Amino acid sequence: MTTTINGASHARNIRARVAERVARLRHDGHLPGLATILVGDDPASAVYVAAKRRAIREAGMRDFHRHLPQHATQDAVAEVIDELAADPDVSGILLQLPLAAHLDAAALIDRIPVTKDVDGLTTASAGRLARGERGLRPCTPSGVIELLDAEGIELKGACVAVVGWGELVGRPLSQLLLRRGATVTVAHEFTTDLAAVTRPTDVVVVATGVRGLIGPEHVKPGATIIDVGIHRTPGGLTGDVRAAELDGIAGRITPVPGGVGPMTIAMLLVNTLQAAEWAAEQEAAVPA
Amino acid sequence: MTTTINGASHARNIRARVAERVARLRHDGHLPGLATILVGDDPASAVYVAAKRRAIREAGMRDFHRHLPQHATQDAVAEVIDELAADPDVSGILLQLPLAAHLDAAALIDRIPVTKDVDGLTTASAGRLARGERGLRPCTPSGVIELLDAEGIELKGACVAVVGWGELVGRPLSQLLLRRGATVTVAHEFTTDLAAVTRPTDVVVVATGVRGLIGPEHVKPGATIIDVGIHRTPGGLTGDVRAAELDGIAGRITPVPGGVGPMTIAMLLVNTLQAAEWAAEQEAAVPA
Ligand SMILES: NC(=O)c1ccc[n+]([C@@H]2O[C@H](COP(=O)([O-])OP(=O)(O)OC[C@H]3O[C@@H](n4cnc5c(N)ncnc54)[C@H](O)[C@@H]3O)[C@@H](O)[C@H]2O)c1
Ligand SMILES: NC(=O)c1ccc[n+]([C@@H]2O[C@H](COP(=O)([O-])OP(=O)(O)OC[C@H]3O[C@@H](n4cnc5c(N)ncnc54)[C@H](O)[C@@H]3O)[C@@H](O)[C@H]2O)c1
Repeated sequence: MTTTINGASHARNIRARVAERVARLRHDGHLPGLATILVGDDPASAVYVAAKRRAIREAGMRDFHRHLPQHATQDAVAEVIDELAADPDVSGILLQLPLAAHLDAAALIDRIPVTKDVDGLTTASAGRLARGERGLRPCTPSGVIELLDAEGIELKGACVAVVGWGELVGRPLSQLLLRRGATVTVAHEFTTDLAAVTRPTDVVVVATGVRGLIGPEHVKPGATIIDVGIHRTPGGLTGDVRAAELDGIAGRITPVPGGVGPMTIAMLLVNTLQAAEWAAEQEAAVPA
Repeated sequence: MTTTINGASHARNIRARVAERVARLRHDGHLPGLATILVGDDPASAVYVAAKRRAIREAGMRDFHRHLPQHATQDAVAEVIDELAADPDVSGILLQLPLAAHLDAAALIDRIPVTKDVDGLTTASAGRLARGERGLRPCTPSGVIELLDAEGIELKGACVAVVGWGELVGRPLSQLLLRRGATVTVAHEFTTDLAAVTRPTDVVVVATGVRGLIGPEHVKPGATIIDVGIHRTPGGLTGDVRAAELDGIAGRITPVPGGVGPMTIAMLLVNTLQAAEWAAEQEAAVPA
């Protein structure tokens, strides 16, 4: 029997916990707020930003939003970021990616102060993750960790394969897993024998952007399979794993949709809350 | 036949190349210089700093040195770092570790500007490594990569086990190996079956601080073994690998001493040179 991991349900639980905490903070006069920045009119980006804003409002947090035209200059975007960075009502800043090619995305991301970096994508946040210092972690990888925890999967001493070493998922995730005491193998496009890497492990996390990459030949019976991939097909959303073929082989598996996806938004709410708490602590630490 | 990797000889080659480049830079008026900071009188630290300063002078670079008393305050050390940070003749700053317990080492390290961080240990440098941005990399792990390159070992597609996930070696090294296209497994003290991790791999790098941890039971015949450990024993220096037992099994192995150790100092010279070149570029980029 293969158990389907209900990411939507785990995400709902996290969002409910965040909403409770927000209600208490609001009472203390520290209402968290997220500022989303959307440059241009890419329909997929607009959908993602709308979903994030809705979740923020549903959790009781303040929703700030800036929409800039497609041709906005580097300086114009930088100015908006700086203004939000200086605004004490804004706990977190999310610059929706990808940006138009005429913009230097890395430079803009790095303008976000580390205490407001709810996507965890600045160089400063990456450094804090690498050094194990306080900081906000990228949402999708921390969502994967939360899912594994919620399913009661022990990470300390477990062998985990991370397939894909991308900036958003594989790279930060491998560090989060190592911090939790897992033995981690990272595979990627240059890995010569992927099945040899994934077959011995207890947990396989797949984040490659290659549709249906992982099948029964890659999986130890009973293993937990986390599918981070998202592909839009005529038949609906599907992932990097051939889930149907793993039925009866995998111990647990995340579906697409309804697995990792909902956790990403839930972790954005958690990060916004943490950013607000971090700011409140810093305020309290400064002598009046 | 097991080949002993001659780290001392590879290090000499690198140091000779650095000296040549320094001579040319000196001619152009950009003589690189390293500032070492030693706090207190720990004999081992004094020996390490003396060796680094000697190597810097032998390569034709300027040797700046600050010796502070054991009881120097956080502010006093910070002031010295800030002064060296502002000095255009100082290309690189090395704060010798460990520091006395009354000092906040992480805060002091993070005062070193990223362009002068020749040890590669600041949070900013760790972030740049994680994001694949320009920056100075920690000396011991880049020395390991240089050794593997000098021995002609192809990293792209190779399976490499990194045993030990410490701040100085394992953590940065695993990222450097992944950037080079290796499939990397990271093992550590919570790894349940170390031999199962290391036996299938082409290359094993050991940096645990556990004397004699790795023996024949961990090694595939023909594999390359890099021993980063250093232990002082009555019989002389020894490493994390039982080298004698691997004779005839390992394909190549680094000795202790004479393996990774000399490469660490060679890479400090390379980093100081790179820091000077980086500063010169930045100077050239600023309109006069
Ligand atoms: N569910 C979510 O909320 C969510 C969030 C972010 C990203 N994603 C998805 O996760 C995936 C990865 O995202 P990213 O930004 O880290 O990706 P990326 O493009 O930065 O990296 C992809 C990685 O996969 C590796 N890869 C490519 N082909 C491979 C192959 N044949 N075998 C093994 N490895 C291979 C590459 O080497 C690279 O390391 C994408 O599909 C993306 O859509 C999902
Ligand atoms: N040759 C050089 O120039 C040079 C330079 C720096 C460090 N070193 C040596 O490298 C070693 C590591 O340095 P570091 O600062 O990264 O160390 P560290 O103490 O920060 O980390 C040690 C790592 O080893 C792991 N470990 C401990 N026991 C283990 C076991 N039984 N099995 C598997 N893993 C185990 C720990 O989990 C940890 O990840 C030290 O011995 C140090 O002396 C040598």
